[in-house]
Amino acid sequence: MHAIVITEPGGPEALTWTEVPDPVPGAGEVLIEVAATAVNRADVMQRKGHYPPPAGAPPYPGLECAGRVAALGEGVAGWQIGDEVCALLSGGGYAEKVAVPVEQVLPVPDGLSPEQAATLPEVACTVWSNVFMLAGLTPRETVLFHGGASGIGTFGIQLAHALGSRVLTTAGSAQKLDRCRELGADVVINYREEDFVERVREETGGAGADVILDIMGAKYLDPNVRALATGGRLVVIGLQGGTKAELNLGRLLSKRAAVHATSLRARPPAEKAAIVAGVRDNVWPLVAAGRVRPIVDRTVPLARAAEAHRALEASEHIGKIILTADR
Amino acid sequence: MHAIVITEPGGPEALTWTEVPDPVPGAGEVLIEVAATAVNRADVMQRKGHYPPPAGAPPYPGLECAGRVAALGEGVAGWQIGDEVCALLSGGGYAEKVAVPVEQVLPVPDGLSPEQAATLPEVACTVWSNVFMLAGLTPRETVLFHGGASGIGTFGIQLAHALGSRVLTTAGSAQKLDRCRELGADVVINYREEDFVERVREETGGAGADVILDIMGAKYLDPNVRALATGGRLVVIGLQGGTKAELNLGRLLSKRAAVHATSLRARPPAEKAAIVAGVRDNVWPLVAAGRVRPIVDRTVPLARAAEAHRALEASEHIGKIILTADR
Repeated sequence: MHAIVITEPGGPEALTWTEVPDPVPGAGEVLIEVAATAVNRADVMQRKGHYPPPAGAPPYPGLECAGRVAALGEGVAGWQIGDEVCALLSGGGYAEKVAVPVEQVLPVPDGLSPEQAATLPEVACTVWSNVFMLAGLTPRETVLFHGGASGIGTFGIQLAHALGSRVLTTAGSAQKLDRCRELGADVVINYREEDFVERVREETGGAGADVILDIMGAKYLDPNVRALATGGRLVVIGLQGGTKAELNLGRLLSKRAAVHATSLRARPPAEKAAIVAGVRDNVWPLVAAGRVRPIVDRTVPLARAAEAHRALEASEHIGKIILTADR
Repeated sequence: MHAIVITEPGGPEALTWTEVPDPVPGAGEVLIEVAATAVNRADVMQRKGHYPPPAGAPPYPGLECAGRVAALGEGVAGWQIGDEVCALLSGGGYAEKVAVPVEQVLPVPDGLSPEQAATLPEVACTVWSNVFMLAGLTPRETVLFHGGASGIGTFGIQLAHALGSRVLTTAGSAQKLDRCRELGADVVINYREEDFVERVREETGGAGADVILDIMGAKYLDPNVRALATGGRLVVIGLQGGTKAELNLGRLLSKRAAVHATSLRARPPAEKAAIVAGVRDNVWPLVAAGRVRPIVDRTVPLARAAEAHRALEASEHIGKIILTADR
């Protein structure tokens, strides 16, 4: 098969469409013939050499895919060759085929194309595991998503809105904010023009946000803590604004609040399986009902992954950038 | 009645035994004739003017007491005048009488004196709510208590040991560490002589502690995060080592860990009620069975509370310092 190989750590030009050995599904694994995969920030970090794949994962980038079941490893039940599926991967989505533990495989929701289905696994598992399983957002509560126009943002806004929470979000342009509002955000904040802490306080009657999903890390640590409500939970899943910052424990204590930091890719298979099962039970019905929709920014052939990385790094997209394995 | 009044913020001499109006139990409150109360660090902070009582609380120090029911407010069921009780208070324990919401009242466990019962409400509610309800310590996990010889430490060691967890603790003298070991600590660490992060790693095969209960705040933030296991939960309930410190979010993220900071006193009545109910159901049977014992360091008459504060501030005690309302 062909896959995108990182020839050596560097810019988008490091992504090279190369002939590589076919993967063989091990016991408990499904071999998927990839129709579409999606670009995540983690892929860019991996390309730059900052995010090596976990042990046992394929060396190629790609944390999710959609396609058809091409083969079943020993002991796999519940799927047939030819079934339309999508999957959460530990890597290897930028390829014509990928082998994945069966617990990370999901059906393609009715009516979705492979390009649409490929937008979902990573954002659905990230938002479900962090905002709902970990932070326990409830319908009466308020959630703040930073980067509302991102893949995670566009999905998180829709899911939290569909489940009855009040949704606040930040983004960097009027166009992005308009889109966030269409997707269900109750309050949109242009972080380039406004102090998000002040706006969050204003919009919550001084209370603050119950849950914050953050991708900025250090740069936003103190403002995020200031924007939290009593009993609030900050969940940091990205470090785009650095890794180390001062934490005011006095403020955190007076709010009886928490700072969580976590990632999905490095979790052990049993935890991923629990997350995927939660997504299937709780999120997939909302996708099937059209209440949470896949947001495809653009579609690029997999062999031209470099183009897609350039687009992601320019941060002008809304939703997910999809790569298709045209045959 | 008489109570300890803080004449003005300052040293132990500010604690003055003074005649004050009797409290009257409101609807849903129980009036307790106090036989014994206990000294907490929060009382010292309140004496110094750094920790004002929450709205509606009596102005006198004292976060717990034991005694007899002296009167019942409107709508109170389940207690009779004369019943032996202990209670979690928002303040006012340093007095001959105190009124408290019925949801914060507990029976005196069989066979305990009032002095012994007065050691329990604050430490039981603190350890149960933070280590078990919030951090979710399980029997297969490892917990680190800082300040193992303190009231919270001596109680936490016993409770976590009784519930099947592996217990590590720090303290500042050989005598204190011996006592911690007798109470059930599996590993004792002299923080004056050893690097606790290194010892925790050694004693856990490099894994770290699943839960850490901390009273130092800023000074221990970074070492605590370094001592955490993957999926670990740090719960900060004291700020004896300052309030602001650098947090390495990269390290926290790679461990998928959390920093909680919280306090008991300021929680709304419904949360206190849930905690007290949890203590009654889960902790009281272990006390009745003698598996978790009250640790009384010394007993001082309430009118001489200043003496007790001096002893606490010298940090030479093991367990709780009790004040008795001798009649």
